[in-house]
Amino acid sequence: MAGAVGRRLKLGMVGGGQGAFIGAVHRIAARLDGQWDLVAGALSSDPQRAAQSAAELGIAPDRAYADYDQMAVLEAQRTDRIDAVAIVTPNHLHAKVATAFLRAGIAVICDKPMTASLEEAEELAALVAQTGVPFILTQTYTGYAMVREARALVARGAIGQVRHVQVEYLQDWLASPVEQSGQKQALWRTDPTLSGAGGCIADIGTHAVNLASFVTGLSLDKVLADLTAFGPGRRLDDNAAVLLRFDTGAKGMIWASQITPGTKNALRLRISGDRGGLFWDQENPDLLEVTPLGEPTRVLRRSGEQMMTPSRTPAGHPEGYLEAFATLYADAAAVLTKAGSPAEQSVSLLPDVRDGLFGMRFVAACLRSSVNGGTWTLV
Amino acid sequence: MAGAVGRRLKLGMVGGGQGAFIGAVHRIAARLDGQWDLVAGALSSDPQRAAQSAAELGIAPDRAYADYDQMAVLEAQRTDRIDAVAIVTPNHLHAKVATAFLRAGIAVICDKPMTASLEEAEELAALVAQTGVPFILTQTYTGYAMVREARALVARGAIGQVRHVQVEYLQDWLASPVEQSGQKQALWRTDPTLSGAGGCIADIGTHAVNLASFVTGLSLDKVLADLTAFGPGRRLDDNAAVLLRFDTGAKGMIWASQITPGTKNALRLRISGDRGGLFWDQENPDLLEVTPLGEPTRVLRRSGEQMMTPSRTPAGHPEGYLEAFATLYADAAAVLTKAGSPAEQSVSLLPDVRDGLFGMRFVAACLRSSVNGGTWTLV
Amino acid sequence: MAGAVGRRLKLGMVGGGQGAFIGAVHRIAARLDGQWDLVAGALSSDPQRAAQSAAELGIAPDRAYADYDQMAVLEAQRTDRIDAVAIVTPNHLHAKVATAFLRAGIAVICDKPMTASLEEAEELAALVAQTGVPFILTQTYTGYAMVREARALVARGAIGQVRHVQVEYLQDWLASPVEQSGQKQALWRTDPTLSGAGGCIADIGTHAVNLASFVTGLSLDKVLADLTAFGPGRRLDDNAAVLLRFDTGAKGMIWASQITPGTKNALRLRISGDRGGLFWDQENPDLLEVTPLGEPTRVLRRSGEQMMTPSRTPAGHPEGYLEAFATLYADAAAVLTKAGSPAEQSVSLLPDVRDGLFGMRFVAACLRSSVNGGTWTLV
Amino acid sequence: MAGAVGRRLKLGMVGGGQGAFIGAVHRIAARLDGQWDLVAGALSSDPQRAAQSAAELGIAPDRAYADYDQMAVLEAQRTDRIDAVAIVTPNHLHAKVATAFLRAGIAVICDKPMTASLEEAEELAALVAQTGVPFILTQTYTGYAMVREARALVARGAIGQVRHVQVEYLQDWLASPVEQSGQKQALWRTDPTLSGAGGCIADIGTHAVNLASFVTGLSLDKVLADLTAFGPGRRLDDNAAVLLRFDTGAKGMIWASQITPGTKNALRLRISGDRGGLFWDQENPDLLEVTPLGEPTRVLRRSGEQMMTPSRTPAGHPEGYLEAFATLYADAAAVLTKAGSPAEQSVSLLPDVRDGLFGMRFVAACLRSSVNGGTWTLV
Repeated sequence: MAGAVGRRLKLGMVGGGQGAFIGAVHRIAARLDGQWDLVAGALSSDPQRAAQSAAELGIAPDRAYADYDQMAVLEAQRTDRIDAVAIVTPNHLHAKVATAFLRAGIAVICDKPMTASLEEAEELAALVAQTGVPFILTQTYTGYAMVREARALVARGAIGQVRHVQVEYLQDWLASPVEQSGQKQALWRTDPTLSGAGGCIADIGTHAVNLASFVTGLSLDKVLADLTAFGPGRRLDDNAAVLLRFDTGAKGMIWASQITPGTKNALRLRISGDRGGLFWDQENPDLLEVTPLGEPTRVLRRSGEQMMTPSRTPAGHPEGYLEAFATLYADAAAVLTKAGSPAEQSVSLLPDVRDGLFGMRFVAACLRSSVNGGTWTLV
Repeated sequence: MAGAVGRRLKLGMVGGGQGAFIGAVHRIAARLDGQWDLVAGALSSDPQRAAQSAAELGIAPDRAYADYDQMAVLEAQRTDRIDAVAIVTPNHLHAKVATAFLRAGIAVICDKPMTASLEEAEELAALVAQTGVPFILTQTYTGYAMVREARALVARGAIGQVRHVQVEYLQDWLASPVEQSGQKQALWRTDPTLSGAGGCIADIGTHAVNLASFVTGLSLDKVLADLTAFGPGRRLDDNAAVLLRFDTGAKGMIWASQITPGTKNALRLRISGDRGGLFWDQENPDLLEVTPLGEPTRVLRRSGEQMMTPSRTPAGHPEGYLEAFATLYADAAAVLTKAGSPAEQSVSLLPDVRDGLFGMRFVAACLRSSVNGGTWTLV
Repeated sequence: MAGAVGRRLKLGMVGGGQGAFIGAVHRIAARLDGQWDLVAGALSSDPQRAAQSAAELGIAPDRAYADYDQMAVLEAQRTDRIDAVAIVTPNHLHAKVATAFLRAGIAVICDKPMTASLEEAEELAALVAQTGVPFILTQTYTGYAMVREARALVARGAIGQVRHVQVEYLQDWLASPVEQSGQKQALWRTDPTLSGAGGCIADIGTHAVNLASFVTGLSLDKVLADLTAFGPGRRLDDNAAVLLRFDTGAKGMIWASQITPGTKNALRLRISGDRGGLFWDQENPDLLEVTPLGEPTRVLRRSGEQMMTPSRTPAGHPEGYLEAFATLYADAAAVLTKAGSPAEQSVSLLPDVRDGLFGMRFVAACLRSSVNGGTWTLV
Repeated sequence: MAGAVGRRLKLGMVGGGQGAFIGAVHRIAARLDGQWDLVAGALSSDPQRAAQSAAELGIAPDRAYADYDQMAVLEAQRTDRIDAVAIVTPNHLHAKVATAFLRAGIAVICDKPMTASLEEAEELAALVAQTGVPFILTQTYTGYAMVREARALVARGAIGQVRHVQVEYLQDWLASPVEQSGQKQALWRTDPTLSGAGGCIADIGTHAVNLASFVTGLSLDKVLADLTAFGPGRRLDDNAAVLLRFDTGAKGMIWASQITPGTKNALRLRISGDRGGLFWDQENPDLLEVTPLGEPTRVLRRSGEQMMTPSRTPAGHPEGYLEAFATLYADAAAVLTKAGSPAEQSVSLLPDVRDGLFGMRFVAACLRSSVNGGTWTLV
């Protein structure tokens, strides 16, 4: 059983009031291993909704803040101050909120994408470097046990040198013009003033490229992107084809789409090495197919035979998205409670501000490449 | 998002000290939706281990009890008494612990199997009936969203009248004589003095028959069982073949095995009705295959199109075993907080003492049938 | 590429005139590897239809016979006589036709089930023994490459000693009472005067038990069967549950059903040994899952890595039912052309009169067991 | 049962002598439905091997030709001349052989790729147009029943207007430098003097683009290709990433690879329309997943419910690669025997010289695009 620690940590949250989706996911993730207590929050920009949400979640009235700036300042002054703040606001606020808490010396756990623009991302990265305050980005899919197993297998040479990486990330929720009938998620996801210049490429393409980087350890040099808005009247891309070139000479492809009927959250990774290959599918996340060249494919199972990566339940008792998310919170707890003894393994696995900056660079490069008609563009 | 309630509930736990598996699962399940706080416990029969375990879990010293009888009595006297106790001791203690808390008027959430013998089960059922105190049995698999969807589909006639139900529940962890090398789980699971007279049939066969009953709503009349201990020197069955006859004339089969290499927790349900059929696999639990007779098979997805059953995350973001378990705790919270307004839906879905009694009758009937060489035996 | 032989063989056929299904399958199977020419036939009991069918198939008029007795006699007198006759008549004629050709010294390739009754089967087996004329039974599923691979793996100890064998064979074509609307296949399959006393158990249960025997090499001692006719007004079983006991102490189960919506020809085999297990599914026949105990499952592929069994096309170019059937004809050709050098391998793999007799004994034992309410019955 | 015709046809073959793979596949395909007899051949450029191969295949000595030019001339003079010639030589001979037979007025069934260069392809297309002699290209995958079903579904609007088409075609046989150890297939496939300038893109990329065109009916405007030779010292591409733009504004991607361990012949097609989507996988070819937007995915089965496309065996009796190939021969027979009544359906489904020309244009455009560093290039 993962997750036992000596000390429970105190979590604050900005955003995630009543009705919000990702805030609720963060809270489940934080609760799951029993290492975090939610004790403070600025849960909504609407003061009344903020107060009600806090009350429902058992946050004491004096730590139910009306705005995040105030929260950062006041929490920093408390002896029982929060150990970290989870930022689950709309994307365009991430940078501002993170800045406030980093300056207050409070660790940040930030939902992705890290910021709404590359400029913000660079400023944030600089601030993290300058302050030395921990910054964790919840790139959820890196929390899956079999994704970590895949990374470990690649690292120890199980498939030889990586030649090619393909990631597809397919959804269908934007196949219809649902934003025109007022669906809330669709409204802001398809509005460049709220989401930035990237649509599908920012929303899920960043997960795809993060997964490729995380598992292979390769550094991405350049991209060639073809972004399309298929939805009638849609201003942001809902389908993205990206060719990848890594620094080692390895190549790759990303296909991210939100208009592919019959798919829901089909994030799949296939890596070809010169001595073997592997395949993982987020919708069946407990399995990992590994093929040593010249041998039959092996189906590795979470918690099963020959596994290096720990998890919570025995093989055959499925873990899923919430568990992957919770693993990030468990790792964050490990990092934050072992300041002296650096918890290297968790540190190296946890996505941080560099991953966030890389994601924003990736999106910016894809946008430039696509606007230029599909040209190779440095990341 | 499931799980919002007005009042948080207080949970006690008996058993589940350091190193215990199922206790940790119960705690995750209780935490996941944020409705339960673990505030009291008699976590081990070893007082020192009990105290240490309690401290690690943040239980106040005055509610870290040395034994469960004392805990039941003292908790019942508190104004901030626990709302329910989770019983996660070895099976042979379930009945005694449950009795203590039921008599103290404290609701019970009991791990399965309910008791070690049919006699105990009957006494417990009588006590529940007499006291009217809520008793919940954690038949985990009934907490899966698609199992509940299957039940709802059958209930509204989507597959017509049920003709045949097949359940297979396959594991491989007892394929080797691991009890001979001291594996702890295997030791007590294969020891009749600790587990009772049923091995595989009690451990997982009860889940299989519970799943069949839960989804179909049928009442089981009789069984014909062939129980085998394949492991060398093993005294309890590790493989069970059971033929089923239901009161409507429907028939069925259960194949439960713990010696089937290549399987981990392969609980699969296939139901044939006169107007359609369905199939569900616990290791891929977000999917449910439904075939209206004469039409192509449809693959229903949790949170996807045309779903009746609520769950936590969108389609394609896998939920698993811990979420199913947490749903039982969420339902328990709903039941216990709505004493006046009866929460009928949750009540009807939550397994209770009657399910536990039925499971023990099923095991007893299978044992009698098999001892008699495989004869039809009333349940 | 399988199938090259020095000499082409001449095939006759009894039954299989215009519109017949299985006759056409036999002809494709015989043609596929280019070793057989269809040169003679008594294709229908209706002389005009027999003649027309023969003409369509390019059979010379003097070898288009009006009845099978005449055909057996006249073919035996020719110098260019047929090398074998394929019997694809309705089941109740198999024994009579086979007898005629065996007595004429002409090899028989007989569709299954071998006969309509156990008595006929025993007489036929005696006749084969007495005459020494080759008799081949087209138990199609033994022709699949991966079924043969499974047999070879079991034989060389890859899964250790076999403990348990489960076969399920599921179809849905009798889920509705299609015989009442005149569907031809359903009419005779559900009519005891045409099909004998066994319905589903004879039609597909025999394939299931044959597959179990073929792959494991075990000898079946006794059965306990529960046969049911779920279709309203149906006189023959359309669902069969059978428990198996083999001579080594191994056990097993067969579930054969023709009323399971969502299944078409779902013949699946799962074998548990004390050192590993395997799984095969006829609807995905190029794969074979093999799990050495304590290691991850390997997915073996036809023509892929580490395969012992030859086949026609490279891995990933699917072979199916017709290829499996053709393999029986190729093996038959090998047997019949290598009379001197005994083609041991093909001989040992080809189902013969003993398999047919065993199948009829199995059906008879299941019928007796079920009529007796489900009792252990010697095969 | 597909394939019954009044008249049997006579087939000649050029190439395909002893030991050749694709010649043997053509012969099986021609035999399978019983409509073709192989009666003539120039089976090898080595006269002795040609004669031996012919004898083995039952070709009369006077029709076992030493070279294809002679064969074309002499066959054209016979009253029992062949109805068509199958060309299964190495690719660089396709054009010359086809030219000889077209000029002799004999129909051609040509293996793919049609020619070794675009120039040859254009000349051949002109010759076909000029002579009016039937020319059939064996793009095997269009012969699968579920591929034809997919085409029919798209044509009747089942998924609305096509937005995006993705095809992946993955193999692993060139993951190792097998050409360096003399593997015959690998030797010529990786040698530009024998295979032309395209490696993987020509060998399997052409199948991928053909499949996309066949099912969608869209016309491809331009491509952007990134071709790579990952194998050490390899001169031809073994991995190809191609972005597609169709004339309607639809887009697509092709990923073709022969260095992806764990894959064998993984040709998969996923199409997104504005009212639904579909998915097909050549390694499980009897299934077709169709998702009407807003409804659960349906799993269509060959010969199953609601199917428009005929095939040979009932649902659940797998058909595979050889059956798909045979369907092309059956269609060819239908076309050639119904010269007066044009057999429109078969004609429209059968790949012809235009498909071959398109394939060569596609390869040429991909090569230009890739050499130019990945630029949009007209097809």
